[in-house]
Amino acid sequence: EYTDVVMENFTCPKNVGEIEDANGVGQVGSPACGDIMKIFLKINDDDIIENASFKTFGCGAAVASSSMATEMIIGKSIEEAGKLKNSDVVDALGGLPDVKIHCSVLAAEAIQAAIQDYKNKK
Amino acid sequence: EYTDVVMENFTCPKNVGEIEDANGVGQVGSPACGDIMKIFLKINDDDIIENASFKTFGCGAAVASSSMATEMIIGKSIEEAGKLKNSDVVDALGGLPDVKIHCSVLAAEAIQAAIQDYKNKK
Ligand code: FES
Repeated sequence: EYTDVVMENFTCPKNVGEIEDANGVGQVGSPACGDIMKIFLKINDDDIIENASFKTFGCGAAVASSSMATEMIIGKSIEEAGKLKNSDVVDALGGLPDVKIHCSVLAAEAIQAAIQDYKNKK
Repeated sequence: EYTDVVMENFTCPKNVGEIEDANGVGQVGSPACGDIMKIFLKINDDDIIENASFKTFGCGAAVASSSMATEMIIGKSIEEAGKLKNSDVVDALGGLPDVKIHCSVLAAEAIQAAIQDYKNKK
């Protein structure tokens, strides 16, 4: 029921773990399942995202979504990255089962929170 | 909020993957989160579980529970293993958050299903 792109991003996820010198960190929890997603961003002086990573205890769909979402924002400005919607991530994954859409929301929301954290600190 | 034992079993799970020559396979799905758990058993002629493994797309709690549950049944008879309750697994993990208890049920139920599959084939 999962696409090949989902399975790839689940079995070999990109950008897993913490970024030591992250200057934007966001964390959100899912009311639907109780899972937590944490996003780490390293943003340079020109407001470009140089590196992005994630940590989660969530399910395979959450892992696949965050792997894909972090790949999609690396190299982008925070303005561009801030526009990433969870539907963009789901499209890039070739779709997710309905019951798993809430997992992809976690990645998008945690990215917003991390960008906000960076702005607040600045 | 997760115990050290949970985190250990999540970050370095035991018995992940398929057993090629499994003679008991069980699969269950969670109504609560849509995740699926598959258990593979290799049972010898004396009805002793020689090897056990799992595959899941589920969350960290599901991974930790299955890692622990498979460890607990390897070397046991199918009669003993069939008595394993999800509360036994949760106890062995030092507890799980309430919202994550349903994830530990998957492991216990899939083990029952795998034992039943073995009995049906016999
Ligand atoms: S079910 Fe919780 S993140 Fe997917």
